[in-house]
Amino acid sequence: MAKKLYHGACYYPELWDEETIQQDITIMRETGINVVRIGEFAWSVMEPEEGNINVNFFKEIIGRLYENGIETIMCTPTPTPPIWLSHDRPERMYVNESGAIMGHGSRQHACTNHPYFRKKAALITTSLAKELGRLPGVIGWQLDNEFKCHVGECMCETCLGLWHEWLKNRYGMIDRLNEAWGTDVWSETYQSFEQVPQPGPAPFLHHASLRTMYQLFSMEKIAAFADEQARIIRIYSDAPISHNSTVMFSVDNERLFQSLDVASFDTYATQENASAFLFNCDLWRHFKKDRPFWILETSPSYAASLESYALPHADGYLKAEAVSSYALGGEAFCYWLWRQQRSGSEIPHGSVLSAWGEKTIGYKNVLDVERARKEIEPFIISTVPAQAEAAMTYSDRAKAFFRTEPHRELNHRSLVTSFYERILKAGIHRDVIPEHHPLDGYKLLFTPYVPYLSSDYIKKASAFAEAGGIWIAGPMTGGRTKEHTIHTDCALGELEKTAGIKTLFTFPMDEDTDSGRAFGVCAPLGLWSAVFDANSGETVGTIEKGPASGKAFLTEQKHGAGKIVLLGSTPSGKDGEAMLEALIVHYAKEAGLTFRTNVTPGTIVAPRIGDSGLIWVIVNMDGKGGSVTLPEAGTDMLSALAVEAGSLSIGEYEYRIIQFDRP
Amino acid sequence: MAKKLYHGACYYPELWDEETIQQDITIMRETGINVVRIGEFAWSVMEPEEGNINVNFFKEIIGRLYENGIETIMCTPTPTPPIWLSHDRPERMYVNESGAIMGHGSRQHACTNHPYFRKKAALITTSLAKELGRLPGVIGWQLDNEFKCHVGECMCETCLGLWHEWLKNRYGMIDRLNEAWGTDVWSETYQSFEQVPQPGPAPFLHHASLRTMYQLFSMEKIAAFADEQARIIRIYSDAPISHNSTVMFSVDNERLFQSLDVASFDTYATQENASAFLFNCDLWRHFKKDRPFWILETSPSYAASLESYALPHADGYLKAEAVSSYALGGEAFCYWLWRQQRSGSEIPHGSVLSAWGEKTIGYKNVLDVERARKEIEPFIISTVPAQAEAAMTYSDRAKAFFRTEPHRELNHRSLVTSFYERILKAGIHRDVIPEHHPLDGYKLLFTPYVPYLSSDYIKKASAFAEAGGIWIAGPMTGGRTKEHTIHTDCALGELEKTAGIKTLFTFPMDEDTDSGRAFGVCAPLGLWSAVFDANSGETVGTIEKGPASGKAFLTEQKHGAGKIVLLGSTPSGKDGEAMLEALIVHYAKEAGLTFRTNVTPGTIVAPRIGDSGLIWVIVNMDGKGGSVTLPEAGTDMLSALAVEAGSLSIGEYEYRIIQFDRP
Amino acid sequence: MAKKLYHGACYYPELWDEETIQQDITIMRETGINVVRIGEFAWSVMEPEEGNINVNFFKEIIGRLYENGIETIMCTPTPTPPIWLSHDRPERMYVNESGAIMGHGSRQHACTNHPYFRKKAALITTSLAKELGRLPGVIGWQLDNEFKCHVGECMCETCLGLWHEWLKNRYGMIDRLNEAWGTDVWSETYQSFEQVPQPGPAPFLHHASLRTMYQLFSMEKIAAFADEQARIIRIYSDAPISHNSTVMFSVDNERLFQSLDVASFDTYATQENASAFLFNCDLWRHFKKDRPFWILETSPSYAASLESYALPHADGYLKAEAVSSYALGGEAFCYWLWRQQRSGSEIPHGSVLSAWGEKTIGYKNVLDVERARKEIEPFIISTVPAQAEAAMTYSDRAKAFFRTEPHRELNHRSLVTSFYERILKAGIHRDVIPEHHPLDGYKLLFTPYVPYLSSDYIKKASAFAEAGGIWIAGPMTGGRTKEHTIHTDCALGELEKTAGIKTLFTFPMDEDTDSGRAFGVCAPLGLWSAVFDANSGETVGTIEKGPASGKAFLTEQKHGAGKIVLLGSTPSGKDGEAMLEALIVHYAKEAGLTFRTNVTPGTIVAPRIGDSGLIWVIVNMDGKGGSVTLPEAGTDMLSALAVEAGSLSIGEYEYRIIQFDRP
Repeated sequence: MAKKLYHGACYYPELWDEETIQQDITIMRETGINVVRIGEFAWSVMEPEEGNINVNFFKEIIGRLYENGIETIMCTPTPTPPIWLSHDRPERMYVNESGAIMGHGSRQHACTNHPYFRKKAALITTSLAKELGRLPGVIGWQLDNEFKCHVGECMCETCLGLWHEWLKNRYGMIDRLNEAWGTDVWSETYQSFEQVPQPGPAPFLHHASLRTMYQLFSMEKIAAFADEQARIIRIYSDAPISHNSTVMFSVDNERLFQSLDVASFDTYATQENASAFLFNCDLWRHFKKDRPFWILETSPSYAASLESYALPHADGYLKAEAVSSYALGGEAFCYWLWRQQRSGSEIPHGSVLSAWGEKTIGYKNVLDVERARKEIEPFIISTVPAQAEAAMTYSDRAKAFFRTEPHRELNHRSLVTSFYERILKAGIHRDVIPEHHPLDGYKLLFTPYVPYLSSDYIKKASAFAEAGGIWIAGPMTGGRTKEHTIHTDCALGELEKTAGIKTLFTFPMDEDTDSGRAFGVCAPLGLWSAVFDANSGETVGTIEKGPASGKAFLTEQKHGAGKIVLLGSTPSGKDGEAMLEALIVHYAKEAGLTFRTNVTPGTIVAPRIGDSGLIWVIVNMDGKGGSVTLPEAGTDMLSALAVEAGSLSIGEYEYRIIQFDRP
Repeated sequence: MAKKLYHGACYYPELWDEETIQQDITIMRETGINVVRIGEFAWSVMEPEEGNINVNFFKEIIGRLYENGIETIMCTPTPTPPIWLSHDRPERMYVNESGAIMGHGSRQHACTNHPYFRKKAALITTSLAKELGRLPGVIGWQLDNEFKCHVGECMCETCLGLWHEWLKNRYGMIDRLNEAWGTDVWSETYQSFEQVPQPGPAPFLHHASLRTMYQLFSMEKIAAFADEQARIIRIYSDAPISHNSTVMFSVDNERLFQSLDVASFDTYATQENASAFLFNCDLWRHFKKDRPFWILETSPSYAASLESYALPHADGYLKAEAVSSYALGGEAFCYWLWRQQRSGSEIPHGSVLSAWGEKTIGYKNVLDVERARKEIEPFIISTVPAQAEAAMTYSDRAKAFFRTEPHRELNHRSLVTSFYERILKAGIHRDVIPEHHPLDGYKLLFTPYVPYLSSDYIKKASAFAEAGGIWIAGPMTGGRTKEHTIHTDCALGELEKTAGIKTLFTFPMDEDTDSGRAFGVCAPLGLWSAVFDANSGETVGTIEKGPASGKAFLTEQKHGAGKIVLLGSTPSGKDGEAMLEALIVHYAKEAGLTFRTNVTPGTIVAPRIGDSGLIWVIVNMDGKGGSVTLPEAGTDMLSALAVEAGSLSIGEYEYRIIQFDRP
Repeated sequence: MAKKLYHGACYYPELWDEETIQQDITIMRETGINVVRIGEFAWSVMEPEEGNINVNFFKEIIGRLYENGIETIMCTPTPTPPIWLSHDRPERMYVNESGAIMGHGSRQHACTNHPYFRKKAALITTSLAKELGRLPGVIGWQLDNEFKCHVGECMCETCLGLWHEWLKNRYGMIDRLNEAWGTDVWSETYQSFEQVPQPGPAPFLHHASLRTMYQLFSMEKIAAFADEQARIIRIYSDAPISHNSTVMFSVDNERLFQSLDVASFDTYATQENASAFLFNCDLWRHFKKDRPFWILETSPSYAASLESYALPHADGYLKAEAVSSYALGGEAFCYWLWRQQRSGSEIPHGSVLSAWGEKTIGYKNVLDVERARKEIEPFIISTVPAQAEAAMTYSDRAKAFFRTEPHRELNHRSLVTSFYERILKAGIHRDVIPEHHPLDGYKLLFTPYVPYLSSDYIKKASAFAEAGGIWIAGPMTGGRTKEHTIHTDCALGELEKTAGIKTLFTFPMDEDTDSGRAFGVCAPLGLWSAVFDANSGETVGTIEKGPASGKAFLTEQKHGAGKIVLLGSTPSGKDGEAMLEALIVHYAKEAGLTFRTNVTPGTIVAPRIGDSGLIWVIVNMDGKGGSVTLPEAGTDMLSALAVEAGSLSIGEYEYRIIQFDRP
């Protein structure tokens, strides 16, 4: 449970003179900023010459901020190792998949697995933790910055050696790797682990297992770096440790946050893509149980770099973002960045103050956020997000499988967000949960776009269904093994056997060629599809057009007290959206979901529970206003006026907090 | 003449266990598969450690298949050299034009010119030929797989040395190269052969001669590898040797098949592109005289890899493909692949059986093919394709010239296929013949899109015209010398002199700017164009719009008993198609062609000749049905019913065989 | 003042035999060619073996040409160093930003900063200057060819060393560089100049200052090479020295032409892009004061290479180009090229004669040019271009800033040309002047798209305004410092202070979101925008839509006897064009411009002044004809007939010369 709500900004005092810092702190106070994130790129300020570490400047700043009521999230500066680490040291640098060795400049240019980098990173973090770790103003740590945001899998010699070790640990003997990967397919059989290449330059595609395993290796290694850094900090500091990640980067967030304390993300979704923002809120609150998440970066107005920019948010949207994030489990809403950078690669990026100290185009929205934060804080800190009855599983490992096998430039994030949007549109309160999250308390489980389903997951979901839950698996779920190969027992392997539904064949459908009908809706079907025997299980959706016409694409089977539903194809277009929403509503009803809200699209409801019972935080996100049906009478907590059951209007970007009378 | 018709599949028994192999053979029998292609990527299974070769597994498989009525095309495994050949041996690897050295993985990663590769390739092929070459089930050999499908011209050090040797052989002295190429143009004059670079990284375009000659060198070298491998096999085996090629790869097919016995191709053309499929059939039967061709790879449903897929063929199309290929000179119709691969880079590819042993979406079409094969076999093996009266020359060397000089991303294959389509649409039975193919028996010759016409070719075609034939040269034909330079005597060099038609100038036309009229059709003109003096020869097509307005783009000149026609520009758009079809019909009439059929588009007629005279195999390819006018009464050989002269309806994807009464 | 008008062609006699050269000279005479450019790529002919230099061939050619009335612009052959310089010498070659080392072939493959290249270049140029520098036919020199047309900033080791030297000279101490660039932003602080990298491979964008300074360094270095070459030539020759440049290449033309004598450019703009051609004429006459410019390359019909082509000019356009260039300050109009190349990379390029010696599609237009040249020569050589009252500043340094910071793929040239077109369309006679050009005599000054405005420039423009001029700065002008950082005093730094107009904030506008109104026109606003406080200065344009609604995007402030106007945003679309034209006309009136012509779009008026007063050269450029209003009566000098004041019709591609009665 959050104790207060943070309204923060990323701040780089090391780049400015004393007078500017004073001005900054003064305006932060005026603005209501109560937390800043500092230090993330400041390695060269902290250790200008190798071995010569001095963090007094930051100690002093933290103190001054604290005196002004502003707390600090301290960052380790490892994304930008100084020139003394990289100059003339190509062996320490990141190598991309074409084999290009990075030079100094930009960020993430060093290989985070290189032992010398690790040694120096440990030393600087030790100094920071020791010197700053117990300062009263320090409320948390951020490790590094956006791991793997600019880079993917490093191909350097150090990584090659670690890769061979990782493979040895995973497979023990080279023959087990050969068997698991099916390397004999193109004479790729290895005689020793030392021979297994990194997936660098090749005339055509690399082997699926090689590409996927190299991603998983890389994801594990960056998480191991985080583990190591966190261990160091904990020796000297009790402040919780976090990292600012996203689902876009080449990391496995569930694994990454295992050894951290607070889950955080950065978001630059534009308003048109508000559902991606909500998706993150619904996902991130699950990485660390019972602990609110932080948004460590978002633009007060627009994102930009030398080579691109977004447009400013419409006035009002920032406030809607902030309120909805607090309502959906957030504790901190922080801007990137406080004062526009005067130099570098991100000089045009939106900020709270300009480089010349003026309030920017976004400033009035920042003030709106602060007003809202104050207004809703009592209601947020006295409640917690209600667990949803419907859960959708999100897997960063699935993302790796899709990167290896994108079919036709498929993007895992888009697929998943689009499925999520259907649940959102159906007005269902939902949790987006990582693969290993328990299923207790859920009634409805969606598992879309997870090519490899672990046996543990299948057992967990099967037990969930046996106990009365409805598990809807698919589309594109379960058709690959752990090693990124094809099952040889049946199309969907253990999923298929557990569901008791026979898959006849799989093939790519296309919206121009294939269509099907379910819940009275006829829609095009597309993407890689599994076709089911209409005689196994209960057919819910039948293919009406295309080579598999007459067979099933959507089938359910009773499973203990519940049900397993397989969705074999991706309904597409407007009709596809309608079909998916009908599917969701149908099973929501069948599963007896109670948290389904009659709300107009573009407005959301975040249910929270506290000692006085249920509250709804209602936010209009699309700037068009809307309405929601209150099932019971209650009280509008912001106006303290009673509200009747029935339709409630919500203005443009307006938020409301309703406490229901019946707890 | 074919003795039987093969219905086959590519098969990788080395990837599966005994039980699966048994299942495979059983279902192959049920399905009617009578030939399989095996071994092509199995080098690491045959020689798991360097020098340790054992091919007993394949001997045993060939025997078992033979006992089950299934014959074998045995492949050499050279596209995928094992890790012991490539590991830590960058000097043996393929180097692309950016200078990137391929690592192990994927296919074709080794340089096929490297002496160590050649030595090991010779050894493995010797073992295979010796051990398997006289087994009763072995009906043929396939060398390697799709030479140069993923790679183009290798830029390694070995190739650099061979390139210098090749140039020495071609030019003798460096000054002759300098003169032939005109290297003085940008001070590129070489002092010795050792200085001539490969066309690697450069600030702007390389010299045309360098780029084209390097392609011809590379095409010669890959053919020489094939020669060498074929010589080895012939020591131990009498079975005919083939290779699975296409017109898309960086090979000169005419040269490649010189030392081989059977011409084969792979095709993954989609149904929309059926004319590309027919083009291949009409071309491939000419690479080896009087010997039917094989289709060694086609998908039973759809092609796919990790990063792309096509959609399944419509039901019925596979059968139409098979029947038309048999009718147009094919002996074998083989799928890639029998059983879906469980691992690697092509796991989603369409197959006959799935990786888990079920019949796929394409299976019913495979059964249709088998029914058709049985039904038509007696009529195909008792006849041979009738030689066409119209021939169109195809040149892979021209392809190399277009790769060097694509003007505006022109693709030789598209240009040629589009011209071919016009002949097809005109209902004219046609041969697509390689450059060196004799012209005996033809009445009409097309030579489109051959920038360099050899003197031998011009003499042959001139003699053909003198003897009464009509030779239509162009568009974009004859304007380049053997060395990929511009003629300095006249625009089209020897062609122009032979034709006796004066070219005024050449320049790029454009459909928005230029148009012309011929045969009563006015159409846009485009692409690189030659404009003729309206006073030389007989003007047939006049430019009506554009800077060359009033001059000729289509001119004919009597030549002995026949005629030479120069087509200087490419008519484009729907009107351009109409103009080209009018041109073809006009000269077909003038040349006295008899094999012109009144057939609706989308349906084809393949005339064949046997002891009982002429038969027509009629196939509907577009799934819409159609009709054809029978010039004489005859017998429908499949129903044994008489048919009248006149219009005959053909159902969707239907095929008919008509034996004419008058032989 | 021009003494005669040159009608020329680029000529490569070293590529052809004696007979062809004779034919060439004969046809040149017939055609009216009176100057040729020779020698530019002929290094290997001049020095076939290293150290063995012989330029007699060129001496003899120059003599023969001169005897035939054809003068020569002699070129140094440095763009194409011979194989003996490059073979096996990777350290002498150009290295691109990916780190790829160029091989021999194409052009500009050597690093022009490598000391060995410089030594050999000095030697060959010395020989040429010594042997040919005082020949009577030699009327000028062209250094090299199109510096930096295929390459940008070289990343070789030699350049790395020079870069460090350049930085040392610029900053003195490394701390000054760190401070100026703000390197601390991503821990990029350098400890010594030797550590500063070239902007090669990096995971994300390089620092703005690094990228811009590396461009300025490279621009300086190529100019220094030109300086050095010019110094050598001047020892032996009095003929003026030029270079054929464009605004597209990575050079600073103002700096480059400083040490040269004649400003020249190449142009291949298509007819649709005629304003780019006019822009060049209006710009190039200002690089060398009181000295007419040369057009050293333009196609008589179309440009082409192996991989691309343009379409031929419409008949008549070439003549319009030639006349307008002479009228706007040109002295020479030269084709690339005389005779089509028979070999190399540009074989399809348009020419006057074909490789086989025939007149090309463009020939009749070349004859038209010659007729026009003769007709207008007396009037051109007796006058000079009238200085315009309106000037627009062009900066190649601004181009470098835009390359570093393109926002959304912005192209400096397109932005600038589009702004120029508005002035052109408004019928205003205009000068496009380099940054350091004096402002004497102007009444109206435009400074669009110059991110960094030097203090010198601001002082000069401020004085201009104080003295009564109107200075319109923007869009996107002044927001960056000399070091490519953001101002920290106010948004637009010294510009803002000088103008006395307060910028509130800057942010990216978008035509779908933002719009404004000025001069009665409402138009979308776009691109990076500065928003002004409506209470500072006089608001002329107000934002009506978007987050800055109600504030100003166009503001003026009295400044001495004149005015400074800040345009903060880029009006876009048709309405934006209308708004800009209204703005231009408004301030033109206010500034009291007299040279504004009522001329239909597509026709231009070039005013010239001679002893007998003002003449107008009127040319129709768009082939549609048009009309112009004569303010006074005068004489049509070509027909010698009197013309009345009032509307005068101009035919398609017609040109007229009007001498006004009142001088």
